[in-house]
Amino acid sequence: MVVAGTFITVEGPDGAGKTSVLTQLLPQLKQHFNQPVILTREPGGAKISEKIRDVILNPEFTEMDARTEALLYAASRRQHLVEVILPALARDEVVVCDRFVDSSVAYQGGGRQIGEEAVLAMNQFATGGLNPDLTLYLDVPVEVGLARIRQHRQNQFDRLDQETVEFHQRVSAAYQRLLAANPERIIAIDATRELAEVTAECLAVLKAKLPALWQ
Amino acid sequence: MVVAGTFITVEGPDGAGKTSVLTQLLPQLKQHFNQPVILTREPGGAKISEKIRDVILNPEFTEMDARTEALLYAASRRQHLVEVILPALARDEVVVCDRFVDSSVAYQGGGRQIGEEAVLAMNQFATGGLNPDLTLYLDVPVEVGLARIRQHRQNQFDRLDQETVEFHQRVSAAYQRLLAANPERIIAIDATRELAEVTAECLAVLKAKLPALWQ
Repeated sequence: MVVAGTFITVEGPDGAGKTSVLTQLLPQLKQHFNQPVILTREPGGAKISEKIRDVILNPEFTEMDARTEALLYAASRRQHLVEVILPALARDEVVVCDRFVDSSVAYQGGGRQIGEEAVLAMNQFATGGLNPDLTLYLDVPVEVGLARIRQHRQNQFDRLDQETVEFHQRVSAAYQRLLAANPERIIAIDATRELAEVTAECLAVLKAKLPALWQ
Repeated sequence: MVVAGTFITVEGPDGAGKTSVLTQLLPQLKQHFNQPVILTREPGGAKISEKIRDVILNPEFTEMDARTEALLYAASRRQHLVEVILPALARDEVVVCDRFVDSSVAYQGGGRQIGEEAVLAMNQFATGGLNPDLTLYLDVPVEVGLARIRQHRQNQFDRLDQETVEFHQRVSAAYQRLLAANPERIIAIDATRELAEVTAECLAVLKAKLPALWQ
């Protein structure tokens, strides 16, 4: 697939601070980049993707199989890609996407133990093989991420039992394998530091790796 | 995957007469087989699969991408497999399923031109590699199938234009490639004949290929 534009994704475990970092980062990218910048995340306003998310997140569907869930995430991703990401890239814009295929490999492949290779291959069906040009990985140890979630969403964290902590450890281990396998594409950023420092390092990485984007 | 039971699928192009043949066949199988027999088809009463079907078939979703659709069919199939087919096979029953993976390979892979290999591989993620023990392929030429549909659903067929006929020709060609690639599993039955003759041949094939099932 030949596309113009630049495709940047942001990844990380729960509690890594993606939302806070992206909120800081976006105005700076808009100011400094030559091309228009859009920030998106699945389902990203695609009506079909929204409907698929409703099925995934329906609390009544306790019988949902892990592979069914992985296929539904991939279907939602495909439609968001076709309706939002690919048209923006075709207009030569910079697309910043909060989570993409790496999240499915880590969460469904590693966390839910379906298998990282199998989830990757199935997602490549969904993406037609499109890879991000660059992925910022906000790196925090599992216990730091979970402590942040505990702080922000006290009642919800109470439901996390030992099995769930092990789930997050499997997710983190899968992310580390993705980092090792994709050293050129995925750049780890120490996200245990203050927000301003993390944002500054993200900007520095974007400047070093994608110099053509900067005015 | 090791499963007990026997998994039989019935395939064919539109207008092949699957429903009529299955209606004739089922009471005879129930009478002659040693084990309980269930007839099912996706979504087969699985609530999650029904909801996924609602998304696929929603007439407002004209923007649905062909790969999104294929992923949704696979998700619906996975849940139906987990909730209906696998439990019945585990009880050592005979499961007769109206359409399965071959339909997606033919319709999405061939008809919608996503690619038969790609659709097969993605569906193997959904099925965990489970293949039918035997597949009855009700074989009719495209023009015969479409003429039967025209007779039964006059108004709907009026909307079939030349492109749609070509779609059905691609589906038929993909089915023929599946037959050639799986000569042991898929048995073609000439379904241009009278219903009684077609049903009798299906029974004869089941007796010849799966003798252990018969009392």
